[in-house]
Amino acid sequence: MLDSLTNLFVRTLRQDPADAELPSHKWLVRAGYIRRAAPGIYSWLPLGLRVLHKIEQIVRDEMNSIGGQEVSFPGLLPKEPYEASGRWTEYGPNLFRLQDRRETDMLLGPTHEEMFTLLVKDLYSSYKDLPLILYQIQIKYRDEARPRAGLLRGREFIMKDSYSFNVDDEGLAAAYQLHRDAYVRIFDRLGFKYQIVEADAGAMGGSKSEEFLAVSPNGEDTFALTDGGYAANIEAVTTPAPEPIDYSNTPAMVVHPTPDVPTIAALVALMNESHPRPDRAWEAADTLKNVVFKLTYPDGKTEPLIVALPGDRDVDTKRLAVAVAPALAEPFAPEDFEPYPDLCPGYIGPVLGEKRILGLDSATKIRYMTDPRIVPGTTWVTGANEPDAHVFNLVYGRDFTSDGTIEVAEVREGDPAPDGSGPLRLARGIEIGHIFQLGRKYAEALGLKVLDANGKQVTVTMGSYGVGVSRAVAAIAEDTCDERGLCWPVEVAPYHVQVVATGKTEDITETAASLAKELSDAGLEVLLDDRKASPGVKFADSEILGVPYSVIVGRALADGQVELRTRATGEKELVAVSEAVARIQATVTAALQR
Amino acid sequence: MLDSLTNLFVRTLRQDPADAELPSHKWLVRAGYIRRAAPGIYSWLPLGLRVLHKIEQIVRDEMNSIGGQEVSFPGLLPKEPYEASGRWTEYGPNLFRLQDRRETDMLLGPTHEEMFTLLVKDLYSSYKDLPLILYQIQIKYRDEARPRAGLLRGREFIMKDSYSFNVDDEGLAAAYQLHRDAYVRIFDRLGFKYQIVEADAGAMGGSKSEEFLAVSPNGEDTFALTDGGYAANIEAVTTPAPEPIDYSNTPAMVVHPTPDVPTIAALVALMNESHPRPDRAWEAADTLKNVVFKLTYPDGKTEPLIVALPGDRDVDTKRLAVAVAPALAEPFAPEDFEPYPDLCPGYIGPVLGEKRILGLDSATKIRYMTDPRIVPGTTWVTGANEPDAHVFNLVYGRDFTSDGTIEVAEVREGDPAPDGSGPLRLARGIEIGHIFQLGRKYAEALGLKVLDANGKQVTVTMGSYGVGVSRAVAAIAEDTCDERGLCWPVEVAPYHVQVVATGKTEDITETAASLAKELSDAGLEVLLDDRKASPGVKFADSEILGVPYSVIVGRALADGQVELRTRATGEKELVAVSEAVARIQATVTAALQR
Repeated sequence: MLDSLTNLFVRTLRQDPADAELPSHKWLVRAGYIRRAAPGIYSWLPLGLRVLHKIEQIVRDEMNSIGGQEVSFPGLLPKEPYEASGRWTEYGPNLFRLQDRRETDMLLGPTHEEMFTLLVKDLYSSYKDLPLILYQIQIKYRDEARPRAGLLRGREFIMKDSYSFNVDDEGLAAAYQLHRDAYVRIFDRLGFKYQIVEADAGAMGGSKSEEFLAVSPNGEDTFALTDGGYAANIEAVTTPAPEPIDYSNTPAMVVHPTPDVPTIAALVALMNESHPRPDRAWEAADTLKNVVFKLTYPDGKTEPLIVALPGDRDVDTKRLAVAVAPALAEPFAPEDFEPYPDLCPGYIGPVLGEKRILGLDSATKIRYMTDPRIVPGTTWVTGANEPDAHVFNLVYGRDFTSDGTIEVAEVREGDPAPDGSGPLRLARGIEIGHIFQLGRKYAEALGLKVLDANGKQVTVTMGSYGVGVSRAVAAIAEDTCDERGLCWPVEVAPYHVQVVATGKTEDITETAASLAKELSDAGLEVLLDDRKASPGVKFADSEILGVPYSVIVGRALADGQVELRTRATGEKELVAVSEAVARIQATVTAALQR
Repeated sequence: MLDSLTNLFVRTLRQDPADAELPSHKWLVRAGYIRRAAPGIYSWLPLGLRVLHKIEQIVRDEMNSIGGQEVSFPGLLPKEPYEASGRWTEYGPNLFRLQDRRETDMLLGPTHEEMFTLLVKDLYSSYKDLPLILYQIQIKYRDEARPRAGLLRGREFIMKDSYSFNVDDEGLAAAYQLHRDAYVRIFDRLGFKYQIVEADAGAMGGSKSEEFLAVSPNGEDTFALTDGGYAANIEAVTTPAPEPIDYSNTPAMVVHPTPDVPTIAALVALMNESHPRPDRAWEAADTLKNVVFKLTYPDGKTEPLIVALPGDRDVDTKRLAVAVAPALAEPFAPEDFEPYPDLCPGYIGPVLGEKRILGLDSATKIRYMTDPRIVPGTTWVTGANEPDAHVFNLVYGRDFTSDGTIEVAEVREGDPAPDGSGPLRLARGIEIGHIFQLGRKYAEALGLKVLDANGKQVTVTMGSYGVGVSRAVAAIAEDTCDERGLCWPVEVAPYHVQVVATGKTEDITETAASLAKELSDAGLEVLLDDRKASPGVKFADSEILGVPYSVIVGRALADGQVELRTRATGEKELVAVSEAVARIQATVTAALQR
């Protein structure tokens, strides 16, 4: 397979695109792999499409290897199944909705749980039909609020999504493990650094869930890991709760004036000055921070939520978003306080005098959730709900309670892992795969039941498994590119080898052409740079395009030699023309078998 | 490659789907190849997807063979390019329009001329960059008024669309011919009867255009052909204009009362009775029928149009639709006549007394178009614009004229072909391919120019070429199915051979399994029916699924034999077990090379 750069529909750009924040985005556009069509929506040029198709084929191979059967659903979908599951509303503004000429509501599929569930319901009716794994490699649509980073967060993108169908939990666990193993093989073959992390499963109503993250300092996802083997997406990190504390000797709560403390640091300074502790200095962690949010649900209803956490921690907005999904949280505006005269902004706390005023069973009926570190017997300094005053000696379980715990506090390097495997480190990554024990949520909503061995109707249990196929193109580019351009692993590279003719003599151009032909005849995918351009332009383009190996046919030909270059390492080596094909073939074969 | 029917995600249905009008639709659903997701929108099950992918690969091969380069555009597109070309409006209700969360107008791509034009403009700037052929195999959306016939007229469908870019007309003609040759190879390989016909090119502003029609009595398209080699879509058939006639001796026009003639037949009868011709009897073809339409343009503007044609011919609504596109024509309602008191419904003609009242330059300013048979000197009987009266001896060129000719009259078997190659026959077909010399319409609208050899900016000329890939699945099924089910040509069949075990002895099941394995090892695609089902069920399913060859392992095995069956011909033959693999392999290989 041989293409020539004279004819190939590609132009490298000398300028970075204005909207490119990440190296992968910049290089994929500059190297002529993709082109923006609209915000978050890209066209695939020949080189990009070749990489995409190779990734698709790797994913298809590995899905077939676990017995997955390929199907394909439409992108344009009817509303009804998504109403039955509740997602027509829950997806909120992320869903592209439209009406057809008969004013029937339709949507562009963001993911296809409902459609797969209905299809299996349509065809299958017995436990003997299961287990079953179906998958598709197909276009998805999500109307992201902030499409960014090229293919990494697009509004139209290609996913492999698969679904497993089983009669019982053991079957689901087995299908999940099959997928996990297949994903390890897929991501090993794709050739970039990845980390498997625990993921939050709550929002989709399922149980176990893991993500495959491409490790990247530019990733949108933060994950936490320990040397002891713990790894979790920051959204799924849980906080070990301390043991309850005996508070029988804790003095009664008392309100002290605290004028002029605009920050927690100022409050702590005043506490140490006016009310010093005998045992140690007051710290921010001794204070209780109460943060007020307005939650808006997909159906438009709103309610207030107050979250309490130690004063040395901030709310992590991503953890908050997951914790309150499908509602959206935003800060309380001044006018939102009007119905709650008991609350004093800046001095909010769970009590007003002797009275508890936060919690669903309190006078305000405001939902009040606490960080897991706030256990019975812990003692806090917090707002007194009057200007310039704080309550001291406020004891959880004695003076106040909450409506439950919530995991929204920031996670820090050094925090203990929930499994006791040591202190956490933090890193960043790009979500490329997600495996998920969905359970019976969709099967129940859409009535997918089969007869079991005893002739009884049982609800099927499902798993849902995704690979971001178009996103993988960018993730691989992000992991492998350098300051000179793209640098593809052999298995997904648009071509295995590039032959570059540098020089205008007939000898050079003919040798380059015949080497390219020989390499192609040997089964390699070859790009020949036969353009009328300077060696400098050709070398620069070669590095931008990122083909893993190059054969340079130039001055050394006078000595019967050509230069072999390895893009990733920069290695250069002169070999005899007669040996070049065999050498390249051996190198590519070895790389593909790795 | 070996699949087993015990595991394959397929269920054959015993009942015809309620909405299936055509055999292909019925069998594709009953055989479990596709499933309706919404009106005109289908999901692909494993068997259907295998056929679809094979067709895609044949199309891809042949496009690559003419130097086509594959790209892929989004389905969700920005409005602006389609506004620049005018198609945002022209497409009318056939376009799926939507707004994103920022209320930006977007559309689902019905075809991608604009996007390809802009992409080439973006990358290329010199005549040296051309010629260029780009293509994609991609999902398209059209909000059909009446989606029907399963995949044949869907609202979401897969097309190969390619575009050629050249600096001059000779280049365009060459690119067109390359495509025409590639299409012949594609449709030959797909294995169904097709006819290449001239198509109407006018609506898209281009010049030459041909369609590839799958010949089928259930096709939506009618085409005309002659033994002399003429073939054209009915919408593109032109009417040879007769020579002008000397009218110097024709008497002056005269109005006669014609009471009580509700039909043309009644009028002709009255004419023969009250005003007989000396030379021959009056015929319907001597009368002039004036049909009034209201045209509605995409921008909502309306105007009347009156079409005149010989009284023995009706207006063909499809020819009319093409002739007035992008406007839509509908019959005049009674209230539409109010602004035109000169017109007398039922008695409309081009004159009222001595006064011409039809035509843009007449008093009514109504556009008046005539059939090509109405040439100067032809004499007509037509309505006098007063109740119960007709004008006789009305001569075209003397008593009335028109604003031009229009091809909307029905075409009949026996009409002369425009190229003089003999009388027309009519047949029906399904449009599967369309090749089109677009010319400079899109390049001009979107500013695609390159520098020519003299350094001058020239507008690029384009061709546009489509293959209905998902539609081809249905067209092949329609051409090859019979009363027992589907019947695939080998090159697109989901499997080459099916091995059917009929009997429960270990010998039978093991021989079937080992034959299937041997066939698969020999490079064939094999489906093994190892289900616990009766031979009758298995044979019926085998015929519904339509795999071209079967190996039946059953009673004959006692004599060391298996039965080979050919689905298309029904041929059955007993062969020794030891010969079966070689025989099937030879048969499939021969069929693939044909």
